[in-house]
Amino acid sequence: MINRFAIIVAGGSGSRMGANSPKQFLPIGGLPILMHTIRQFRSYSADVSIIVTLPAEQIPVWDALCRKYQFDEPVLVIPGGATRFQSVRNGLEQIQTEDGLVAVHDGVRPFVTTDMIRNSFETANRTGSAVTCVPLKDSVRMLESDGKNQAVDRTKYRLIQTPQTFQLSIFKRAFQTDEQPFFTDCASVVEYAGFPITLIDGSYDNIKITPPEDLEISEQKLRSAS
Amino acid sequence: MINRFAIIVAGGSGSRMGANSPKQFLPIGGLPILMHTIRQFRSYSADVSIIVTLPAEQIPVWDALCRKYQFDEPVLVIPGGATRFQSVRNGLEQIQTEDGLVAVHDGVRPFVTTDMIRNSFETANRTGSAVTCVPLKDSVRMLESDGKNQAVDRTKYRLIQTPQTFQLSIFKRAFQTDEQPFFTDCASVVEYAGFPITLIDGSYDNIKITPPEDLEISEQKLRSAS
Repeated sequence: MINRFAIIVAGGSGSRMGANSPKQFLPIGGLPILMHTIRQFRSYSADVSIIVTLPAEQIPVWDALCRKYQFDEPVLVIPGGATRFQSVRNGLEQIQTEDGLVAVHDGVRPFVTTDMIRNSFETANRTGSAVTCVPLKDSVRMLESDGKNQAVDRTKYRLIQTPQTFQLSIFKRAFQTDEQPFFTDCASVVEYAGFPITLIDGSYDNIKITPPEDLEISEQKLRSAS
Repeated sequence: MINRFAIIVAGGSGSRMGANSPKQFLPIGGLPILMHTIRQFRSYSADVSIIVTLPAEQIPVWDALCRKYQFDEPVLVIPGGATRFQSVRNGLEQIQTEDGLVAVHDGVRPFVTTDMIRNSFETANRTGSAVTCVPLKDSVRMLESDGKNQAVDRTKYRLIQTPQTFQLSIFKRAFQTDEQPFFTDCASVVEYAGFPITLIDGSYDNIKITPPEDLEISEQKLRSAS
């Protein structure tokens, strides 16, 4: 059996949601978003060790929510850092082995499927990495330094999602670096360390819930799925 | 008063929707999508001349829908072409003047706002073109010819939407070309003719309704807007 870990990054303060509650705690279908996300990883496998990073001040809120919703999935909750990179690194410090695989996933992407998670672990086991993505549906233009812009060939680009799954030996090596301003996700960290990135198919349904309107969309997605 | 035209391209066969009805005719909030879209342009101004392109065989269906829904907005409905480029060109042939502005818009983008339409006409009047776009929220990777891929700076890219509005003299000149395989939108046609493209702000709400799940999302958007 290969060691499998998941670091679920739930760092948002919720300020963009126009809500008092951090966005990962807002309920959809009667359950906080983060609980939906955790359940998808648990549905994939009872054997995956789940680490959740939260802003330190939100951990008591989370504990209270777990009691309120009688949510008793075994997960390790730890304080995140000032940035996503630092939150992932905090999660990684909890993993004592270099033997196995780790998936990093956004706490506010509750529509990830068990098939996507499975494919992510299996591909990373084979190739070292598995980064979920989708093709672009829209035309794309690139801004140029002179203020002009030009069309680019959209078929050559992919929009990146999570899960992003890696062999632990690679991932730990990659995270020994200082944080760089161009680290927008884990793939960019691993690439910076010189490792190749394998892309796998995500889904347009696998949205990252951000602005307030996504909450309504998410409620609807849940209703149509059930 | 400047002449203002809108070509609303509604060409889809609906085969991707898993529905018998073409997608532009599917109802959201009790009204076919295309009627919502037309109403937004009419709300912007009573003076804009609206041309709708539809597959020829769908025109009788549209006429029946107009009777059913008592939809009596004055629009010119004409047959589209085999491609989006040809549909826009068919629409353009209905416009006898080179003096004024034309907005091209997707029939299945009903969440365009009157502010967006107004900004589009005003900007094109000043600069020659106005192409609606949004920044990328996700990380982006570029596929390379050797099968590898690499991160790109997402802040340099924009996802393109409609409306795309142009001065008629420019637009007519641009559409004298033969269709090229890299024409994914009107901006790419105008750019190919050597004219610069001005980008303006769209909105993440201004979605192009495509797969079946978007219908549910759209119902929800309408409910939350009312």
